[in-house]
Amino acid sequence: MTSQAVAYFTEHGSVEAVNARIGAGCDARLALVMSRLVHHLHAFVKDVALTQEEWGLAIDFLTRTGQMCDDKRQEYILLSDVLGVSMLVDAINNRRPEGATENTVLGPFHVDGVPEMPMGTNICKDGAKEPCLFEGVVTDLQGRPLQGVRIDVWSDNEEGFYDVQQPGVQPEHNNRGVFVTGADGRYWFEGIKPVSYPIPDDGPVGQLLGRLGRHPYRPAHMHFMVSREGFDTIVTHTFVGGDAYLASDAVFGVKASLIAPFDPVEGGATKWRSRFDFVMNPRDVV
Amino acid sequence: MTSQAVAYFTEHGSVEAVNARIGAGCDARLALVMSRLVHHLHAFVKDVALTQEEWGLAIDFLTRTGQMCDDKRQEYILLSDVLGVSMLVDAINNRRPEGATENTVLGPFHVDGVPEMPMGTNICKDGAKEPCLFEGVVTDLQGRPLQGVRIDVWSDNEEGFYDVQQPGVQPEHNNRGVFVTGADGRYWFEGIKPVSYPIPDDGPVGQLLGRLGRHPYRPAHMHFMVSREGFDTIVTHTFVGGDAYLASDAVFGVKASLIAPFDPVEGGATKWRSRFDFVMNPRDVV
Repeated sequence: MTSQAVAYFTEHGSVEAVNARIGAGCDARLALVMSRLVHHLHAFVKDVALTQEEWGLAIDFLTRTGQMCDDKRQEYILLSDVLGVSMLVDAINNRRPEGATENTVLGPFHVDGVPEMPMGTNICKDGAKEPCLFEGVVTDLQGRPLQGVRIDVWSDNEEGFYDVQQPGVQPEHNNRGVFVTGADGRYWFEGIKPVSYPIPDDGPVGQLLGRLGRHPYRPAHMHFMVSREGFDTIVTHTFVGGDAYLASDAVFGVKASLIAPFDPVEGGATKWRSRFDFVMNPRDVV
Repeated sequence: MTSQAVAYFTEHGSVEAVNARIGAGCDARLALVMSRLVHHLHAFVKDVALTQEEWGLAIDFLTRTGQMCDDKRQEYILLSDVLGVSMLVDAINNRRPEGATENTVLGPFHVDGVPEMPMGTNICKDGAKEPCLFEGVVTDLQGRPLQGVRIDVWSDNEEGFYDVQQPGVQPEHNNRGVFVTGADGRYWFEGIKPVSYPIPDDGPVGQLLGRLGRHPYRPAHMHFMVSREGFDTIVTHTFVGGDAYLASDAVFGVKASLIAPFDPVEGGATKWRSRFDFVMNPRDVV
């Protein structure tokens, strides 16, 4: 026995005991990520002096969160969202210079394969009471209009549901569109003035929000994915200025620069107009 | 709009943005635990500059870990075990003075309702090739023998499986016993020399261990739960001295003070003898 030479687990040396086990053949990045995870996780447990009972509640919560997931529901992404982790990862990986349009969370409702449409198309297929014209220009950091920019947009309907949440109820691709800018960099299309809605709150994450005294609502927003070769893809929303939940978005997606005007339009079918310009950051050439 | 007065989410101020949302009615302990969790979780994400791809892998891993759980398998406890969290929580909640027997992890295989047996009973019901006598004395910190101490023991069989892992294959309560000390504080019973075994490694946690270059084995051990009114309950193992996995227990359960002698016995049916004395710590009177 050489037990005296071995660093057995102790409360004080817990991090080192665990991380010393990582094998020489382990991928270097995985070794770094996992060893830092152990460092911060143990720091948390020590910081709050987690009780055995609380540990048991945590095991149960994590288990139920996994078991709430299926092909339509991703409760762990919701958990990441409400703890601000999704926004933090997005922020770290999308730092941009002053003036470039900021990112926010993609969310779970983006759909691939929506066909390209002519500028001006009305993307609302279920009869909107509050039609809205969305328009603006896409430029580079120097303000030059960008041609050939793909603008992929999606929003909920006036009941607060995305089409994929109500298959068979809403028309396919309701409130979804894809547009490509011409030489003037301009875009315009008809949609609806989006409405605020709760994230799914009938699972463990909703229960947690309730216990924390938090509501599950997101302020009304239109999703945009703005992309062109040679530039960072902008994944963002424009938020409806004045929404009651702007200061308390359940997933922390709001940034001041993303709050857009939604101005009433007098006369005619279109009731609202929202102008928002996008500024693209050139992609680093590796 | 009062957006200029609102602290929207930023990379730098991420922790404060999330924790500012906790409502006034939230339980004080929950508010503390969750706000410190957010603090340490965000520190981890920033520390390693977690990529979007790694975030996606983490979401997938956590989901699969939850979905691996059922009424016989608790993959999140395994994850807690292999990251040293189970041992850390045990250590924090069971600090004892020098000389008192140390705790280690309970593990998932304890069973309630095993009947009390006379001292000396053989608890192995499936024919052991390596019978072992377990014996010792239970005292207080001053070395005085303790009467009326309940000693609840359990181990795997010589193939490395607990009875509850093989219902219908092993006899009920195989290698389990409950004994109560008399005035001399002594205990003794027949069992087997335990063998090392892997924790269940056919799920996400086993895959993680593999990628970290770690094996899933636990060194051979006998479980003991030693309890008497007025004293801290000792939940611990005695480890078989000389086991090949003592220095690399997959769940970090080994402490130097818990390594017990297993001495060969010449002649007769009993092949081994393991002596281990327990020292109980008086419980704090609240």
